[in-house]
Amino acid sequence: MKILIIGGKGTIGKKVTDHFIKENEVIVAARNSGDVTVNIEDSKAIEKMFREVGKVDAIICIAGEAKWASFNELSEEDYYIGIRSKLMGQVNLVRIGQGFLKPGGSITLSTGVLADDPVVRTASAAMVNGGIHSFAQAAALELEHGHRLNVVSLELVVDAYEKYKDYFQGHNPISMEKAINAYVRSVMGKRNGEIIRVYT
Amino acid sequence: MKILIIGGKGTIGKKVTDHFIKENEVIVAARNSGDVTVNIEDSKAIEKMFREVGKVDAIICIAGEAKWASFNELSEEDYYIGIRSKLMGQVNLVRIGQGFLKPGGSITLSTGVLADDPVVRTASAAMVNGGIHSFAQAAALELEHGHRLNVVSLELVVDAYEKYKDYFQGHNPISMEKAINAYVRSVMGKRNGEIIRVYT
Repeated sequence: MKILIIGGKGTIGKKVTDHFIKENEVIVAARNSGDVTVNIEDSKAIEKMFREVGKVDAIICIAGEAKWASFNELSEEDYYIGIRSKLMGQVNLVRIGQGFLKPGGSITLSTGVLADDPVVRTASAAMVNGGIHSFAQAAALELEHGHRLNVVSLELVVDAYEKYKDYFQGHNPISMEKAINAYVRSVMGKRNGEIIRVYT
Repeated sequence: MKILIIGGKGTIGKKVTDHFIKENEVIVAARNSGDVTVNIEDSKAIEKMFREVGKVDAIICIAGEAKWASFNELSEEDYYIGIRSKLMGQVNLVRIGQGFLKPGGSITLSTGVLADDPVVRTASAAMVNGGIHSFAQAAALELEHGHRLNVVSLELVVDAYEKYKDYFQGHNPISMEKAINAYVRSVMGKRNGEIIRVYT
């Protein structure tokens, strides 16, 4: 199977890449490194990436950012950081990526527990995650050629615990094995339009 | 109680207005009519509206649009119609409106069943609804002065059934009484950060 992993150099992405690379051809896309580079905020860069990579069996996105700040600090423009990157970046990956997906192929997007169970400073980050959940459920109804679209929504992962634990007080971090398995379930399973929540 | 209803001239808005006006001072804001006019896509117009209206006890928004089209027809720019209007329009109403809300006052936003149970042609509309759900849950954690923020998410209502029934095949429309009561629950109750789903 030929799998394109956008964000394959990140905390979660590198572990997901390490898993799939054992038995698949994996192309890693990242902003400044990897087999191909892409800035998902730019739909033209997404098109260019897909033309370089060609047809694939699975697209996994574990990329996209949003601004974290207290609600009273977040300006209107701050929300558009997440809108252009994590929200519309992933929407555009589906819009454009379906043209480079083999019949029966899958697209897996990434969000996080904030969509359902936010913490302070995440009005913008939660918003883009929730938007992706509803988008994916809707878009999945209309995919063609047996394509599938799912979203992996993870609780804080063990490998990011030290960095984020102060924001996620009382949250129980999940193992990297559980995180990886959520992506495996989306790519290797048959479900479509599923939000794969791994919160415990 | 002084209540500002943005979108108070719409199918649902006029019924909600008719209810609250019996025992409250209601100011209706709409795009081209009402007591004050506002285009919620424009945050400067939102500020101007609030300066005209002054301090209120409750803000209700039943406004905002998004483009409905098949997934393959929706361009990147089409998604930004809903992002600027229904998504960021409502975010900006909370950002700006909290400064014009009396202590203990409430803000009630509107989404719809598409956030949780989309139909075809709603990849963009569902997305903005889901974004508002997660935004409101997150922002509600940080409100000050006893302010509350809830979202009303309705199934197709009886008064819109004829217009939309072909899109919502198999959905059971809810009564206008149930729709009104969802807004009453948000304004008159004490809950904060709640998604008030009325789907049956």
